[in-house]
Amino acid sequence: MRYELYYWPSIQGRCEFVRLALEDAGADYVDIARGPKGMAAMMRLMESRSVNNPPFAPPFLKAGKLVIAQTANILLYLGPRLGLVPQSEAARLWAHQLQLTIADWVSEAHDTHHPMGGSLYYEDQKREAKRRAADFTAERIPKFFDYFEGVLQRSSKRSGYLLGKQFSYVDLSLFQMIEGLRYAFPRTMKKLEKKYPRALALRDRVAARPRLARYVDSPRRISFNQEGIFRYYPELER
Amino acid sequence: MRYELYYWPSIQGRCEFVRLALEDAGADYVDIARGPKGMAAMMRLMESRSVNNPPFAPPFLKAGKLVIAQTANILLYLGPRLGLVPQSEAARLWAHQLQLTIADWVSEAHDTHHPMGGSLYYEDQKREAKRRAADFTAERIPKFFDYFEGVLQRSSKRSGYLLGKQFSYVDLSLFQMIEGLRYAFPRTMKKLEKKYPRALALRDRVAARPRLARYVDSPRRISFNQEGIFRYYPELER
Repeated sequence: MRYELYYWPSIQGRCEFVRLALEDAGADYVDIARGPKGMAAMMRLMESRSVNNPPFAPPFLKAGKLVIAQTANILLYLGPRLGLVPQSEAARLWAHQLQLTIADWVSEAHDTHHPMGGSLYYEDQKREAKRRAADFTAERIPKFFDYFEGVLQRSSKRSGYLLGKQFSYVDLSLFQMIEGLRYAFPRTMKKLEKKYPRALALRDRVAARPRLARYVDSPRRISFNQEGIFRYYPELER
Repeated sequence: MRYELYYWPSIQGRCEFVRLALEDAGADYVDIARGPKGMAAMMRLMESRSVNNPPFAPPFLKAGKLVIAQTANILLYLGPRLGLVPQSEAARLWAHQLQLTIADWVSEAHDTHHPMGGSLYYEDQKREAKRRAADFTAERIPKFFDYFEGVLQRSSKRSGYLLGKQFSYVDLSLFQMIEGLRYAFPRTMKKLEKKYPRALALRDRVAARPRLARYVDSPRRISFNQEGIFRYYPELER
């Protein structure tokens, strides 16, 4: 089956967590909104009265007749189909729990540049952004890293993936999180990375996966930019 | 099986979405941290090196040997076991997608009083809270209600629950969301409610469910208060 993926065409955003899974698995998919008339198709699908299960927002995935939204939910669906999660219910719930924790981390990363809400420009909330980013870099980034490093420590005897022996989509998501934080908060990450050797080793291991590496170097990978979730505003690190 | 639920003992918080499901289903559970030495037991479990799948934060549920965290993930697990979601994978994914959308709404409600981060007191971010709350009440509450009203409109021929014919844990969660918003933003809700007759009718239908109604009137239901996610600060509505 060819999956249809729908998302804003100019950013990685939350959709990138889904793209990495599809790409690493070598799945057959089309990034609809990046193709001709794709944005119109996406808006039509979102507003259609004939879709019984409408998404609140992109990204969403069309898989046959199913339309599935919410990034972590899409990965919950794709994980077993792409061989990116073990079969047992316990392992799938644990993977999903980790993914939802990453989703919380992503939201907090977004809020550093939009703490007053998404309907205002960054320029109109710069002072608040500085305050929020100070808390994020000093308290929240270390708290999340401590947690994931702890998970990796427990699983290290079982080979160093987040779930233990078996590689999963959550490893891809932690890779993406680290890439995003490096882009948005390079000074903070430079200071912090040495404290989290297991997370960084996992990041490198993911980066070396052949299909993943080919994707990251390809034009299919949209570059980080100032419209996405991870944005580089030097003033937010001072 | 007796479920063990772990959460901060003095607030409804995110855990309330899980409690409503357990209570409405008449499930056998213990709210561990509200019992004797319960907080110590919760902290011990969170910090234990012998728990392979540690939670990042409460709430979490112990179900036999499983420890499951993240509110929506707990409901994903409990839903079929409590008869609060249809059996098909498509219906479960749809229910979970709606639950994750409510989770986003809950986070935004929380951020109205803590837009600068959870490590600062409300009093130290009051000005920012006013600005964030203005956006939340003017833009975000209507946007989420428009969405859920639209979902109910599509499903109304199929009886008016969010999933159509079958009552589910997502109906309980929308009930809780409305109760929380009424507590935190009474003036806003008074103005808005008439625009969303289907959502409000669903709220009333849930409130009339016998087990749910008994729970809400019992001492097991912690009252809304100024420590939880939904807080009533009159200055945030001006």
